[in-house]
Amino acid sequence: MREELLSRITSPEDIKKLDLPSLERLAQEIRERIISTVENNGGHLGANLGVVELTIALHSVLSAPRDRIIWDVGHQCYTHKLITGRQDRFHTLRQWGGLSGFPLPAESEYDPFGVGHSSTSISAAAGMVIARDLLGKDFRVVAVIGDGALTGGMAFEGLNHIGSLGKDILVILNDNEMSITNNVGALSDYLGRIRSDTRLYQAREGLAAFLRGIPLVGPPLAKLAHKVKITLKHMLPGQFFEELGFAYLGPFDGHNIAELQRAIRAGLQRRGPVLIHVHTQKGRGHALAEKIPHRYHGVSPNNGSAGSSGPSFSQAFGQALVRLAKDDPRIVAITAAMRDGTGLGPFAEAFPERFFDVGIAEQHAVTLAAGMAKEGLRPVVAIYSTFLQRGYDQVIHDVALQQLPVVLAVDRAGVVGDDGATHQGVFDISFLRAVPGLTLLAPRDGSELAAMLAWALEQPGPVAIRYPRAAAGNTVPGEPFDPKGAIPPVEVKPGRDGVVFTFGPMVEVALAAAASLEPELSFAVVNVRALKPLDGERIRAAVRGKKCAVTLEDHVLAGGFGSSILEILGESAGTGSSLRVERIGYPDEFIPHGSIERLHEQYGLTAGQVAEVLRRAASQPKLQVVVSGDI
Amino acid sequence: MREELLSRITSPEDIKKLDLPSLERLAQEIRERIISTVENNGGHLGANLGVVELTIALHSVLSAPRDRIIWDVGHQCYTHKLITGRQDRFHTLRQWGGLSGFPLPAESEYDPFGVGHSSTSISAAAGMVIARDLLGKDFRVVAVIGDGALTGGMAFEGLNHIGSLGKDILVILNDNEMSITNNVGALSDYLGRIRSDTRLYQAREGLAAFLRGIPLVGPPLAKLAHKVKITLKHMLPGQFFEELGFAYLGPFDGHNIAELQRAIRAGLQRRGPVLIHVHTQKGRGHALAEKIPHRYHGVSPNNGSAGSSGPSFSQAFGQALVRLAKDDPRIVAITAAMRDGTGLGPFAEAFPERFFDVGIAEQHAVTLAAGMAKEGLRPVVAIYSTFLQRGYDQVIHDVALQQLPVVLAVDRAGVVGDDGATHQGVFDISFLRAVPGLTLLAPRDGSELAAMLAWALEQPGPVAIRYPRAAAGNTVPGEPFDPKGAIPPVEVKPGRDGVVFTFGPMVEVALAAAASLEPELSFAVVNVRALKPLDGERIRAAVRGKKCAVTLEDHVLAGGFGSSILEILGESAGTGSSLRVERIGYPDEFIPHGSIERLHEQYGLTAGQVAEVLRRAASQPKLQVVVSGDI
Repeated sequence: MREELLSRITSPEDIKKLDLPSLERLAQEIRERIISTVENNGGHLGANLGVVELTIALHSVLSAPRDRIIWDVGHQCYTHKLITGRQDRFHTLRQWGGLSGFPLPAESEYDPFGVGHSSTSISAAAGMVIARDLLGKDFRVVAVIGDGALTGGMAFEGLNHIGSLGKDILVILNDNEMSITNNVGALSDYLGRIRSDTRLYQAREGLAAFLRGIPLVGPPLAKLAHKVKITLKHMLPGQFFEELGFAYLGPFDGHNIAELQRAIRAGLQRRGPVLIHVHTQKGRGHALAEKIPHRYHGVSPNNGSAGSSGPSFSQAFGQALVRLAKDDPRIVAITAAMRDGTGLGPFAEAFPERFFDVGIAEQHAVTLAAGMAKEGLRPVVAIYSTFLQRGYDQVIHDVALQQLPVVLAVDRAGVVGDDGATHQGVFDISFLRAVPGLTLLAPRDGSELAAMLAWALEQPGPVAIRYPRAAAGNTVPGEPFDPKGAIPPVEVKPGRDGVVFTFGPMVEVALAAAASLEPELSFAVVNVRALKPLDGERIRAAVRGKKCAVTLEDHVLAGGFGSSILEILGESAGTGSSLRVERIGYPDEFIPHGSIERLHEQYGLTAGQVAEVLRRAASQPKLQVVVSGDI
Repeated sequence: MREELLSRITSPEDIKKLDLPSLERLAQEIRERIISTVENNGGHLGANLGVVELTIALHSVLSAPRDRIIWDVGHQCYTHKLITGRQDRFHTLRQWGGLSGFPLPAESEYDPFGVGHSSTSISAAAGMVIARDLLGKDFRVVAVIGDGALTGGMAFEGLNHIGSLGKDILVILNDNEMSITNNVGALSDYLGRIRSDTRLYQAREGLAAFLRGIPLVGPPLAKLAHKVKITLKHMLPGQFFEELGFAYLGPFDGHNIAELQRAIRAGLQRRGPVLIHVHTQKGRGHALAEKIPHRYHGVSPNNGSAGSSGPSFSQAFGQALVRLAKDDPRIVAITAAMRDGTGLGPFAEAFPERFFDVGIAEQHAVTLAAGMAKEGLRPVVAIYSTFLQRGYDQVIHDVALQQLPVVLAVDRAGVVGDDGATHQGVFDISFLRAVPGLTLLAPRDGSELAAMLAWALEQPGPVAIRYPRAAAGNTVPGEPFDPKGAIPPVEVKPGRDGVVFTFGPMVEVALAAAASLEPELSFAVVNVRALKPLDGERIRAAVRGKKCAVTLEDHVLAGGFGSSILEILGESAGTGSSLRVERIGYPDEFIPHGSIERLHEQYGLTAGQVAEVLRRAASQPKLQVVVSGDI
């Protein structure tokens, strides 16, 4: 009998036909399907188990796809996918060519807006309701946002704007008391007070009952009654949202389908902006995920596709930072809701007073670090490449412009795999190397990462260190870099015919590619290490006497690493031998989800594919870019 | 007797010695000095006239530079500069080599944090108080933020974080009821209610008096009294800030020095985060600036350094958009508190219901547009290049990834002049051209801008149009572009020896440079127009038979336009003639303030300087980058 109900749900219309006990049974079936699929494919477990009932209630009241449901962040969309015609493909979740782990308009008409980053839903929904009203259309727009995502400043910008326009929009605050690890900030404390402090509610009720008992005769008392009415309005919970122009309803039990249905209907009946506060439990229905939800936020697949072994770059970073912080009390660490993902867990445990998780607030994270650096601390901001896009202006305006010694630990740089297009960290070299005075480093392995981190913490200005979601390889401490000097490129393998310029773990790919061509062709491999500023002299020296150069990067080609090598070679003057340059990297398109290995293969970044480019470059009689001169 | 007081103020210590009437006289003198200086040099008038008393009160109570005063945005720092030892140089305000119009740590120890963009002060101040407490130091930190800047999500991120840490920090909300034009959003409405609605205050007082009159005997009534106490706490104004963990004091009269001193002292005496709400009047003391403050937000200098005549690119944009919007009701315009600066005033007047000023909220502005585009509108987001840095992630994640037809009108692209390093728009090509699927255009004049805008509004995906703070030159409507085709580069002048690739008004510079070399040397000039995607075929065709190519851009060289030309030439294959490529643009440094003309001269972008590069490139026997092939 298992899954009998779920298998019959082909669209949300089927949900509407079910009675309450059936909906509750459906919720249980969906929970089981999510757990088994995530165990196999990896994915976001806790968030999805928390919104099963909420999703069912929404689809039972709304009429999607006519009505638009915008899931903030989107990693909680599994129930939504299962009941909007995608359960047959659900086993392909997050796999190459399979279902995305996030809402994706190209995948289904039930996904009205693409998403992956946090705090965008209110702005997108605001745009939709404005368009609806201007174009004279008629549909409902619901944004579902977690309490963690609500700490992102963008969500506040959206609330502040749409709250003043008075348009019909429903925001559902999915309050599960955490973003990924624990939630932080005053707003979170505030929500906690609303949830737990029934005293306030009782006070309001008690006072109201008491005042109702006073006979309202005579002008003074009538006047007072009016004042009391105003007063009571200001005693409601959710005043924070009321001040922003939203009618607040809640809090409601996020696992009680009937209560949720009533709340959603009530919210839709009111005119203007309405916020419904729903209390859910992350990991609901999964014993371990309920108990230690941050462990079950993102789950790695059991099917072995992760492939890598040993500590990750993130872990190597965290370990190195703990070592350094023991000797330097000025070192502090900042993360934006990515404590465990960035490897900062051990640091947070060792130095709780020097660890700052600011919640989903990348802009604040970067400028907070700037303020700390200004006053003598040595802050390290660990942030994923894709989320650093949120703090770009702060990197320019608050850190680099003032040449403040902030270290940016840019994690997940390169393709990240299963999370897909929204999360690939393939733009940071282009956007960071434009920033004056910023040093940009890329370690080949954990050993280099540790040395670079130590070096960066001795610099007078900002340093960004980018490293991928990958095993860190060698983590044995190596030679420290001279804090006063720059970090030079190093030829990790000599060669006769050509040279490969690369960095990070791509060095291993280049070495394997070069080795596969020996002895027929002999390619040098240069680990450039410092991507900005580039050591022009050594780059030019490396191409001297060679017939071709190839650049290899886990990054877009537009304005990326290869482009910067072209700039350097373009600056060299003189006459002499000529050189062919080829660039390997990502083309001008967004990279979809799939395992990292699969994506590298898809885009020509495996050793075998790189070897083919090297062979072609070395054998090609026609020259492409020719750098000539005394190089 | 005029300025007798001000001329004796060499540091804030001198302020402390003055009695109240003297401080009031000083305020008057400072007002006069600001008005006369801004009339001559240009600058921010309204904001500075609004905070004269507040600045005096702050410096009379605090001990700067030991105590840190962080001015949000910073354009209101003139009084601060005048009384912190810089009055002798105040006449050099915003001029090349003179005082910056913003706080600048390199300029004075009284400027603890550099600033120019909005909403950063709370984050920076938060970093400073954390550093202070961790390092065992003892000083006060005060952030002064306007109500407009408070709508920026980053300010909320800062409040939310520091509000939960309980550290001593003072935030002064300088509420002048507007950002640059009118303030927008629910928070602004809320502040208005606090200021004007004494009813709430009376209700609280009246209820308290009434309840005090009830004899508190017996458990039920005692319990009720306790509840009422809790209740009253929730009836205070400023509850929004209280919910975020701040003690709220206010509102206070921002032009009453004695009241301000008392408020600041009270705020400093309390432990934990305190917010003082001060009500000021923008343009205070200047009849016209009080009356039409948005006209006097930024004032152009009388000394003629602006130099340009005719409509600006911003005005040409606004006019073209009004024309297009008459025929297409789907067109809407969005700005982030830059209605007049972006030339959208006429649009706002003609189509008030299709105009959206979201306040200082660039992230929301971009994603709001994405939501609108998704539902069938054709949104145009007008935003300065430097502020688009704040919406970078939204351009990638919400617009480009979904290929939504949003038009980004990137105003103030290139150096902007007097506003200086924080405001130069010299990174956008680098950060935008990395974004897959985004088309990036640059019009030579108002005529091309209008045609590009019309073309952009017919595209199925996102288009950014970048143009500088400059006269638009020719605004006569020209040939429309074929909506289905791309916008090709055009050779605006043929030439024999070499070719200059450029775009925007730099085309005129290149033409003048080329003309100055005739007939000795003959350079073609190509107006590239579409910076992304580049038309590789025509770029390669343009260099065919030439001995050199020079790229010219009002932008940083790192990853910029010249770099993209190198990428194109690097992709061409074959054998044949060889080509030297030189790139002209900004080096790896932040560009300070000064007139645009002065900055162009400083960095080698004048016609005469470009001509020198052309001459050198054409005569240089030694080749730099050689592209050979069938080009």
